[in-house]
Amino acid sequence: MPRLILVRHGQSQWNLENRFTGWWDVGLTEKGEEEALAAGRLLKAKGIVPTVAFTSFQTRAIRTLHLALREADLLWIPETKDWRLNERHYGGLTGLNKAETAEKHGKDQVHIWRRSFDIPPPVMEPGSEFDLSQDPRYAGIDVPQSESLKDTIARVLPYYQSSIVPHLKAGATVLVSAHGNSLRALVKHLSGISDEEITGLEIPTGQPIIYELDDDLNAADRYYLSER
Amino acid sequence: MPRLILVRHGQSQWNLENRFTGWWDVGLTEKGEEEALAAGRLLKAKGIVPTVAFTSFQTRAIRTLHLALREADLLWIPETKDWRLNERHYGGLTGLNKAETAEKHGKDQVHIWRRSFDIPPPVMEPGSEFDLSQDPRYAGIDVPQSESLKDTIARVLPYYQSSIVPHLKAGATVLVSAHGNSLRALVKHLSGISDEEITGLEIPTGQPIIYELDDDLNAADRYYLSER
Repeated sequence: MPRLILVRHGQSQWNLENRFTGWWDVGLTEKGEEEALAAGRLLKAKGIVPTVAFTSFQTRAIRTLHLALREADLLWIPETKDWRLNERHYGGLTGLNKAETAEKHGKDQVHIWRRSFDIPPPVMEPGSEFDLSQDPRYAGIDVPQSESLKDTIARVLPYYQSSIVPHLKAGATVLVSAHGNSLRALVKHLSGISDEEITGLEIPTGQPIIYELDDDLNAADRYYLSER
Repeated sequence: MPRLILVRHGQSQWNLENRFTGWWDVGLTEKGEEEALAAGRLLKAKGIVPTVAFTSFQTRAIRTLHLALREADLLWIPETKDWRLNERHYGGLTGLNKAETAEKHGKDQVHIWRRSFDIPPPVMEPGSEFDLSQDPRYAGIDVPQSESLKDTIARVLPYYQSSIVPHLKAGATVLVSAHGNSLRALVKHLSGISDEEITGLEIPTGQPIIYELDDDLNAADRYYLSER
């Protein structure tokens, strides 16, 4: 039976500082590293053996993958990195402290940006230090100026269909180490969650979520690995 | 211009203990981790930017790659792992301390096993704790019972031609993180070293070796990055 394992990266430096991060490439904190290691130990303890791995272009998700695979003695499995698994692009909010942003723009506005399904935050100002459109990492990619959750889903799901589904169809156990919003895209699809509900669904960091799939890749079972 | 960067993994636990390692999967020591980090810092300081990476199925080479890429802010580049970049398989010597082996079999015999071009060490005894032929990592692969350097070259070079050369032809800067003997295979090929001489060529750990290649992928220049 095909199986999909989702892991949200451990705590990052900007999670800790409560700043909008999006595509900006910040590292894990020590706590984040520990969360990633614990995820790998849990996979090993429960006998869940991923056969292939996917992650984003962002260091915090890649390192979470590597730390988990190391603990599970599985560093050797194939891994693919793709920008379409990146976090939602927070546009002009990138780098801002969430509390300060609420003071400046009002709590209600920030709530809309964070929790609406299809309203993207304001675009990045020209010349922003957080502009990645010229970063060699994204050469040949049309870096978004800002994304709603809907926009994020619109790049994650086609990637899932084209690049991950073939492995699942072949019976693989696929590990995806990614971000709150790119994982929401997958959870929404697999668990059939509505546009309204998905924006409020919190995915905990470093907690492997297991989808047991049937032959048509519908979810036969979904659980947190720590609870089994 | 295409460019090939070779890095031998940092010190492993069995390097430190002076044991024959081969395909057995031992980790890096703290010194080995530091060597890997230093290799990445050197790449960054010299402005050498790999665009694609290759490594073996063995943790010490994979971690050397990850630690170096992390220091170079390049964790996101594509990486491919393949068993054909593994260390030479030491057969029945695997796990033995080199000094003890010399006492048991005689210094001259051990010298032949270590330094002859085409004489493999004795095969592994049936039921050896170091037998990897049933390891899921090598499923579908005919795990050697023992390899000479010639045998090692006979699997490394076809892999280089089929999987690495296309990237070089396209102008990539390719980083290969691997092992003393799998790297000897590449150095022998690129620098035109004889069968007799290659067995004595020592490749230092954690020291990036740069090959600047011409359009026909002949070596136009070869140097240790630390010396430029």
